[in-house]
Amino acid sequence: MRFDLPTPGFSFELLATLGHARAGILHTPRGDIETPVFMPVGTAGTVKAMTADELRAPPLDAKIILGNTYHLFLRPGMEVMSIAGGLHRFAAWDRPILTDSGGFQVFSLAALGEIDDDGVTFRSHIDGTKHRLTPEISMDIQRVLGSDIAMCFDQCPPGDADAATHEVALARTTAWAKRCRVAPHAPGQAVFGIVQGGIDTQRRLRHMDEITALDFDGYALGGLAVGEQLADTYRILDQVAHRLPAERPRYLMGVGTPQDLETAIAAGIDMFDCVMPTRNARNGYLFTRSGPRVNIPNAANRTDLGPIDPDCPCATCRTHSRAYLRHLYLAKEILYARLATLHNLTFYACHVRAIRDRILAEGERA
Amino acid sequence: MRFDLPTPGFSFELLATLGHARAGILHTPRGDIETPVFMPVGTAGTVKAMTADELRAPPLDAKIILGNTYHLFLRPGMEVMSIAGGLHRFAAWDRPILTDSGGFQVFSLAALGEIDDDGVTFRSHIDGTKHRLTPEISMDIQRVLGSDIAMCFDQCPPGDADAATHEVALARTTAWAKRCRVAPHAPGQAVFGIVQGGIDTQRRLRHMDEITALDFDGYALGGLAVGEQLADTYRILDQVAHRLPAERPRYLMGVGTPQDLETAIAAGIDMFDCVMPTRNARNGYLFTRSGPRVNIPNAANRTDLGPIDPDCPCATCRTHSRAYLRHLYLAKEILYARLATLHNLTFYACHVRAIRDRILAEGERA
Repeated sequence: MRFDLPTPGFSFELLATLGHARAGILHTPRGDIETPVFMPVGTAGTVKAMTADELRAPPLDAKIILGNTYHLFLRPGMEVMSIAGGLHRFAAWDRPILTDSGGFQVFSLAALGEIDDDGVTFRSHIDGTKHRLTPEISMDIQRVLGSDIAMCFDQCPPGDADAATHEVALARTTAWAKRCRVAPHAPGQAVFGIVQGGIDTQRRLRHMDEITALDFDGYALGGLAVGEQLADTYRILDQVAHRLPAERPRYLMGVGTPQDLETAIAAGIDMFDCVMPTRNARNGYLFTRSGPRVNIPNAANRTDLGPIDPDCPCATCRTHSRAYLRHLYLAKEILYARLATLHNLTFYACHVRAIRDRILAEGERA
Repeated sequence: MRFDLPTPGFSFELLATLGHARAGILHTPRGDIETPVFMPVGTAGTVKAMTADELRAPPLDAKIILGNTYHLFLRPGMEVMSIAGGLHRFAAWDRPILTDSGGFQVFSLAALGEIDDDGVTFRSHIDGTKHRLTPEISMDIQRVLGSDIAMCFDQCPPGDADAATHEVALARTTAWAKRCRVAPHAPGQAVFGIVQGGIDTQRRLRHMDEITALDFDGYALGGLAVGEQLADTYRILDQVAHRLPAERPRYLMGVGTPQDLETAIAAGIDMFDCVMPTRNARNGYLFTRSGPRVNIPNAANRTDLGPIDPDCPCATCRTHSRAYLRHLYLAKEILYARLATLHNLTFYACHVRAIRDRILAEGERA
C-alpha cells in the first residue's frame, strides 16, 4: 500500500507489518528511504569524522542523514548557507536530509533567555551572541538549508517537568505547529509534526490528536529519553506509537540504544536518529553483535589481534584489530575516530536492516 | 642502469639525470618506489587522519610511508608490535615502510638524560618513564617493526651547535653506524647510513667519507633544517648531495617546503620525509599550485565556493569548497583534518611527481 503524503513528490509505502512493527519505503524526490531507518546525525554539516562517500558506501549505505538547524544557524550562519545554495551542496551530500527545528538545542545547549508564546530568545553556546528563534524563523532557516524533511519548532520540557509546565509547552507546541504548517517552505520539502506530552499517556494521546489534525507529512514523538525512566519511555512507545496515523512515517527523535530501537520498531516507529553510535565511538565504546559493548581502552584489547566484531562487514572490522584501535585511541589519533565511527554506524545500520528483513520475512504483506 | 644494493632484493635503478637531479626507481621486496619520492610521515602507526586505502589511492598513491621508532617503542611498545607481527600487519599497510632510528626524537622530544658513547638515556614525553636507546636497541626495535628500510642510530646536534659538539657527535655517529651495520636486522630489511656534520662543508664531506665507507643500502643527510639559515641548508645540499654515491638512493631527512624539495632534487636528492604537509593541513595551511598557501580560517574563504586549488586532482578539491573547509576548521570537525591532509599530501605527491616527469622528459637517459 502506497500513501501519498501532503507534500508533492513524497509518498509512504507500507510493505509489511508484524504486530505493530512496519517495514516500508519513504519515497522522496531525492531518493527512497527503506524503513525502519536509522539516520546518522550530521550536526554541523558533517556526520562527525565521516565523508559523504563513506556514508553512502555499502554496507553502511545511509539513505538519509540529519542536520541540526541550531548549529548551522550559528555556524556557518545563514548568509553562507544561502550563498552555498543549501546544506546538500555545502556538504556535498546528494541524498535526503532531515533537519530538526533547533528547539531541542535551544532548550538543552544554549543559555536560555526569555521564552514566550511567540518564540525563544537565547545566547549561542559558541560565542554568547543573542539570537531569537520563532516557528517562522525556524522554518525559514530550514527552507534555506533546503532539507528534504523539516521539523516543526516545538518546546520540549525536561523529563522531570511538572504537569503545569507540560500543559504550557503542549499548548505552545500546538500553536507553533499551526504556524509551521502555513509557513513557507522549500520546494520538495516535507514537514513533520512533533507530539510532546512527557510520560503521561492521556496527555500524549491528546496532543497527538491536536498535531495529527494538522495533516503533516509525518509525525515524530519528541520529549522521550530526556531524563525519564526507561520503563516510562517504553510504556509511552507501546501506548502511543501505533496510534499515530498508519499512512504516515513515524519518527522517534533522539533515541537510542540498539535495544531502544528494537522496542520502538515493535511499537510501530519507522525512523530514528541519535548521536549514540557516533559519540560512543569517539569515546571508546564500540557495539558488537554478541556480548556487551567493547570499551576499547581496556587492557584486554592490548594484544587482541581480532576485530571488534567478527560478524561485522564494516571496513574497520575487516581490516583492523582491537589492538590497533586501542593504540590509536590511546594515542588520540584522528584515524581512531574514523574507524570507530564507521563501525558503530555500520552496526546500527545492520541492526535496523536485520529487523526490517525480519518484518518482511515474517510479517503480513500490507 | 640498475644497481644491486647490499641487501638482497633491493636495487636502485637510475633512469635519467638532469644536472645533478635524478629520476629512478628504488626496487624493494614490497614494491617499487619511483624516485624522487616524498614519504608521508606515519608517526604512531598512522599517517595522521588517513587510512591506508586513501594513501594508496591515486592520485596520492603513496609508495612508501615513514614510521617513528621512538613513538612506536613507547606506544604501543614492543610487546604489542611483536605479537602483532610488525608494523605492516599492525597498521594494515602492505607497501614499504622506512623507520627512523629514534635518535632525532630522543634529542628533540624526550627529556634527555645522559648521553655517552654507548647510547642515550631519556624520559618518555608521554609518561616520564625512563628508557635507553643504543645502536643495537634501535636496530632491534626496527627489526621487530619489520620496516623495509631501517635507519642508523645517530646523534643530531642542533643547528647552533659549536664545532666541538659537532666533532663529538660525528665520531659517535660513525661509531654507532658501524655497530648498526653489523647488528641483526629483519630479513629483507635494508639499512641506510646517515651523514651529519652541520653546515660546515668540509666536516660534512669528511663524515660522508666515513659513512659511505661502511657500504649501506642508501645514504641520508641528517641534521639539516634543524635551526640553521636556509642559505646554509641549500649550500650544504649543493655541495654534498651530488657527491653521495650515485648508485645508492639519497635521502634528505625531515625536509621540507615544496621549494626545499625542488632545490634538494636539483642537488641530487631522491627521497624526502616531512611532517609539513600533514601538520600544516591540520593547522589550517593548504598548499596551492598558483600563489601562496591558503590560510583556511581567513575571512576571505567564508563564502568562497571554489576549491582550495582548481588544478588539484584530490577528492577534497574535486568535491569541497573553501567555504565548507573553513566551516569545518572553525567547528573543529574531524572531517576537516581528513580533507586538508588528503589535499596537502596529494599536493606534495604531485609536486615531486611533476619534477620527476621533467627529469625524465628533459634529462639524459642514465
